[in-house]
Amino acid sequence: MTRYKLTIEYDGRPYVGWQRQSNGVGIQQVIEEAIFGFSGERVSVNGAGRTDAGVHATGQVAHIDLSCERRADVVRDAINAHMRHHPIAVVDAEIVNDDFDARFSATRRHYIYHICNRAAPLAVGLGFAWHMRRKLDAQAMHDAAQRLLGKHDFSTFRDSECQANSPIRTLDQLDVMRIGTRIEIRTSAQSFLHRQVRSIVGSLEHVGSGKWTSDDLWDALQARDRARCGQVAPAYGLYLARVDYDDGLK
Amino acid sequence: MTRYKLTIEYDGRPYVGWQRQSNGVGIQQVIEEAIFGFSGERVSVNGAGRTDAGVHATGQVAHIDLSCERRADVVRDAINAHMRHHPIAVVDAEIVNDDFDARFSATRRHYIYHICNRAAPLAVGLGFAWHMRRKLDAQAMHDAAQRLLGKHDFSTFRDSECQANSPIRTLDQLDVMRIGTRIEIRTSAQSFLHRQVRSIVGSLEHVGSGKWTSDDLWDALQARDRARCGQVAPAYGLYLARVDYDDGLK
Repeated sequence: MTRYKLTIEYDGRPYVGWQRQSNGVGIQQVIEEAIFGFSGERVSVNGAGRTDAGVHATGQVAHIDLSCERRADVVRDAINAHMRHHPIAVVDAEIVNDDFDARFSATRRHYIYHICNRAAPLAVGLGFAWHMRRKLDAQAMHDAAQRLLGKHDFSTFRDSECQANSPIRTLDQLDVMRIGTRIEIRTSAQSFLHRQVRSIVGSLEHVGSGKWTSDDLWDALQARDRARCGQVAPAYGLYLARVDYDDGLK
Repeated sequence: MTRYKLTIEYDGRPYVGWQRQSNGVGIQQVIEEAIFGFSGERVSVNGAGRTDAGVHATGQVAHIDLSCERRADVVRDAINAHMRHHPIAVVDAEIVNDDFDARFSATRRHYIYHICNRAAPLAVGLGFAWHMRRKLDAQAMHDAAQRLLGKHDFSTFRDSECQANSPIRTLDQLDVMRIGTRIEIRTSAQSFLHRQVRSIVGSLEHVGSGKWTSDDLWDALQARDRARCGQVAPAYGLYLARVDYDDGLK
């Protein structure tokens, strides 16, 4: 068996999410069928992050095992050729050691959330950012966000159906920056809870619009109560941008 | 009558182009119908550039005259509300003098062309850039492009159906830059011939892929012969990004 690490980009809108599900097509499934299409092998595509319905990726990572060894670029092109009617692309493939696991070997996951902050609705970029009419104070959002860094119980910012054993996570980065009418939120951690990024972004929007102070955000975190989450930002503004691994694992 | 300057963004894919045409819906027509929807006035939306079918805009400019004076932001929001099922948005509106003409007062038009230069097809951004698998030499493209700057007879890079009286144009900027796997071509001139940008980009691609030398591009220009154009790059990579006016005209 040869193990391949795949770096994957997708437009999440047409799918029920990364995972195979009974109520529609998952991205994982499209890739598994493309692999079967060129190799005849039924493999499992193991992703680093199980993105929700509508969430995009520019740098999702997955691993697969193929019984027949082929050049990595041949595998990349063959999968892409069999997915050509889908907005899903393997941007990179490489052969890795058998102990590489896309999910369990990941040392850090990076997400980006895009807000389009202007009076006019989106035209170019529609479906790829959250549209907020009201002017947001990005600096206030950034300042408040810094208080969420480090190790905390994120129960407030965790979906009620989250299956993780513990609500404790360590947030390494949570930067909010304005670029013209665009607001970009960049966050990274070894791992995230279910809907954690969208729950934090939705609550930071309350800070940006003046509905919440920085202390309100802090109090919401401290409450460890899902009912205290401000709101959950929509899926289509979120991107899984990159996943890091220790070099030794490749 | 009150004259308004509108700055407009659109995804060009669903339309036959900027202009009203018999074979489908034009962007101009969608905006004219939205204006009729809120004001009951049948006006003409006069654009700075008649973009082709599939070409996008982030900064198209048009002017309209309304018999009833309203605040500019009210006009902007009302037009947008009546176009909400279209990927077209008025991003800015302002009241201008009666001698402002979106087309004839324009001192410079700026276009951007996006190429996605990687093995994998596009997923996020599909329909918004030209996909080129073969690695292009962006520096060679940029260097060759500099020879097209200034005043020339651009007959080679002009559509056979171009209705301009003269094939002479003055190119002020033609920059090619690589940002990772993205190649961005930025060009500006007081005015362009029909399909001039796409004809130049298609020919520059020949330079980037090594099919043409810089001298071949120069010879093609000198030939003043449409048959010597390399190729016409696809519409969906092109954006009308900005239109400049003398400040005195606002």
